[in-house]
Amino acid sequence: MLVHQKNYQTIWLKQEGLVQVIDQRHLPFEFIIRDLLSLEDAWWAIREMVVRGAPLIGVTASFGIYLGLMEDSGKAGWQQRLQSSAEYLSSARPTAVNLAYALYRQLATLREAASLEQAREMALATARQLKEQEKENCRLIGEYGMPLIRDLSKKKNGEPVNILTHCNAGWLATVDHGTATAPIYLAHDQGIPVHVWVDETRPRNQGARLTAWELEQHGVPYTVVADNTGGLLMQKGMVDMVIVGSDRTTANGDVANKIGTYLKALAARDNNIPFYAALPLSSIDMNLSDGIRDIPIEQRKEEEVKYIEGYSEGGLRKVLLTPQKCRVANYGFDVTPAAYVTSLITEKGVCKPNKQDIEKLFQS
Amino acid sequence: MLVHQKNYQTIWLKQEGLVQVIDQRHLPFEFIIRDLLSLEDAWWAIREMVVRGAPLIGVTASFGIYLGLMEDSGKAGWQQRLQSSAEYLSSARPTAVNLAYALYRQLATLREAASLEQAREMALATARQLKEQEKENCRLIGEYGMPLIRDLSKKKNGEPVNILTHCNAGWLATVDHGTATAPIYLAHDQGIPVHVWVDETRPRNQGARLTAWELEQHGVPYTVVADNTGGLLMQKGMVDMVIVGSDRTTANGDVANKIGTYLKALAARDNNIPFYAALPLSSIDMNLSDGIRDIPIEQRKEEEVKYIEGYSEGGLRKVLLTPQKCRVANYGFDVTPAAYVTSLITEKGVCKPNKQDIEKLFQS
Repeated sequence: MLVHQKNYQTIWLKQEGLVQVIDQRHLPFEFIIRDLLSLEDAWWAIREMVVRGAPLIGVTASFGIYLGLMEDSGKAGWQQRLQSSAEYLSSARPTAVNLAYALYRQLATLREAASLEQAREMALATARQLKEQEKENCRLIGEYGMPLIRDLSKKKNGEPVNILTHCNAGWLATVDHGTATAPIYLAHDQGIPVHVWVDETRPRNQGARLTAWELEQHGVPYTVVADNTGGLLMQKGMVDMVIVGSDRTTANGDVANKIGTYLKALAARDNNIPFYAALPLSSIDMNLSDGIRDIPIEQRKEEEVKYIEGYSEGGLRKVLLTPQKCRVANYGFDVTPAAYVTSLITEKGVCKPNKQDIEKLFQS
Repeated sequence: MLVHQKNYQTIWLKQEGLVQVIDQRHLPFEFIIRDLLSLEDAWWAIREMVVRGAPLIGVTASFGIYLGLMEDSGKAGWQQRLQSSAEYLSSARPTAVNLAYALYRQLATLREAASLEQAREMALATARQLKEQEKENCRLIGEYGMPLIRDLSKKKNGEPVNILTHCNAGWLATVDHGTATAPIYLAHDQGIPVHVWVDETRPRNQGARLTAWELEQHGVPYTVVADNTGGLLMQKGMVDMVIVGSDRTTANGDVANKIGTYLKALAARDNNIPFYAALPLSSIDMNLSDGIRDIPIEQRKEEEVKYIEGYSEGGLRKVLLTPQKCRVANYGFDVTPAAYVTSLITEKGVCKPNKQDIEKLFQS
């Protein structure tokens, strides 16, 4: 997508042994590109949330394995060192499923490598393949989701379609296009007028910081609102559809996503507004059936609620928002029951959130 | 209510010609008491939100008239100067209904004054009367609402009753007790174990700053959460009841309150949790029947969403949260339809949110 009128992805190989990423910690205030030259650099980028978003974390780890092999001295034992590199990388964000998968895939491929030289080539090919696959999934989510926007646009006789989104399920969380944003970018690029309501998304403000920045850079009209605002907008007829991403979806279509998503789904239901979750099939866990019961909800640090980071006097600063000794709870996700989800938008098509239709998609 | 183990109200006459208030702009970080010695001081306190909350604004304005008369030189024409004092005070927060009412009441009373000396006495008496009336209304809301908590406590065999509240409808918004908090303080003071989930309440964070501070000072157990969190807490059975305040309620029981209230009402409904609005009858507008259609929603400054104020390095600081040129919408209130309100808690009793039952209360 566009940044300063130029096309970017979130990660790319600049030259042999040099991977570059956008440093997302400084957005939207500063646009900084970081060089990753080593295994340690890749670990650091994942750990410090220079890169974030499940697909992007996986791709970064995959490139990390390549960087580790490029650094390798070539002495006997590179296979053993490869194994410990993978363990090291997986420690950067222990709960990220895509990270584990990306590392597993690298190790499985590299077992076939006859030499360090060949391993380097294979690792780079695997990382590039994963990157392309993640990108293609998002592109297809866009292709399948865009007609939903186009149909609303026709109904509105070309008036802008107002789409509400929560958190950042944008291209910054993936390689390109994003999940929830993919249909929006495609509609915009095809000349369909859209306007996006961007939930601020407390406590980490991914909406106000990342989604707002993405949309602004790509030229998509948007308005940031406090998370409290969506209900009123829907009551007033100012929202035509909701599209969110998903961290994990159950076999029956219950959608776990950033905390607060469920409240927007309830308001959409109450006002007859369609509510879509856009996600790659890899995030559907066919072993789970009851999302509210089965999906564990991560509790994060109190500091994320007590303090907030913003920009002041040329730098990032944290300020205290509550009484100093205040008790705080910080849950990361909630679960929207399938009954409140209009459809899932995936790289294999749009489907109703129920076991039968989801299984059909997997088989198609 | 208690501050540093001592009983306080939000406003009091310290001595002749000297009114004191708690400076709410610095809470919860610093506890500062301000002297109001003149009409201008009262105007400033209302304008700069040193005091806020509809009942407290009215009482402050009423004392402002008294301060103006105390300053008056005694030359001929004090009656005319009184009229312009009232106009001046009402310009401090033009949309506050309680402010207009308090000034109207002072002027109506003072028409009877035969001398400046008598006017001073009457103005003080009127201000004190309004203050006592506001306090008594809140006390009675507590008396009528407390049994709802006590009943839940019995059902839970004395386990703490978990109450979610939004924004600050606490004693800081009134003279004492608060509206939504009055039943909570009374239950706590009577030894009924309660725990309060405090919505942060973006964009102005009245929950994280004021409600959290109030509850902490009075010793009521509480936990601050991001506004996005309430739905999950309700899904998980961690909320037993919701109590909010109201800025304006229609004849049929639609409740306008701080933006985001409606989303919590939807979640309460979805999880069979009772949802109460606590309010003085004076905030019910019997001329309105359809809240969503009829109640105008105030739009506030973009800066309140783009920037946030917190504490850092010994002082209040603002930091930027969004792209610099970001477009923002900042709606102040939303309307919760009567169908999602279990009951209204007023100074005349608890009633169902419908025209017939509300009219009965007014007549009782």
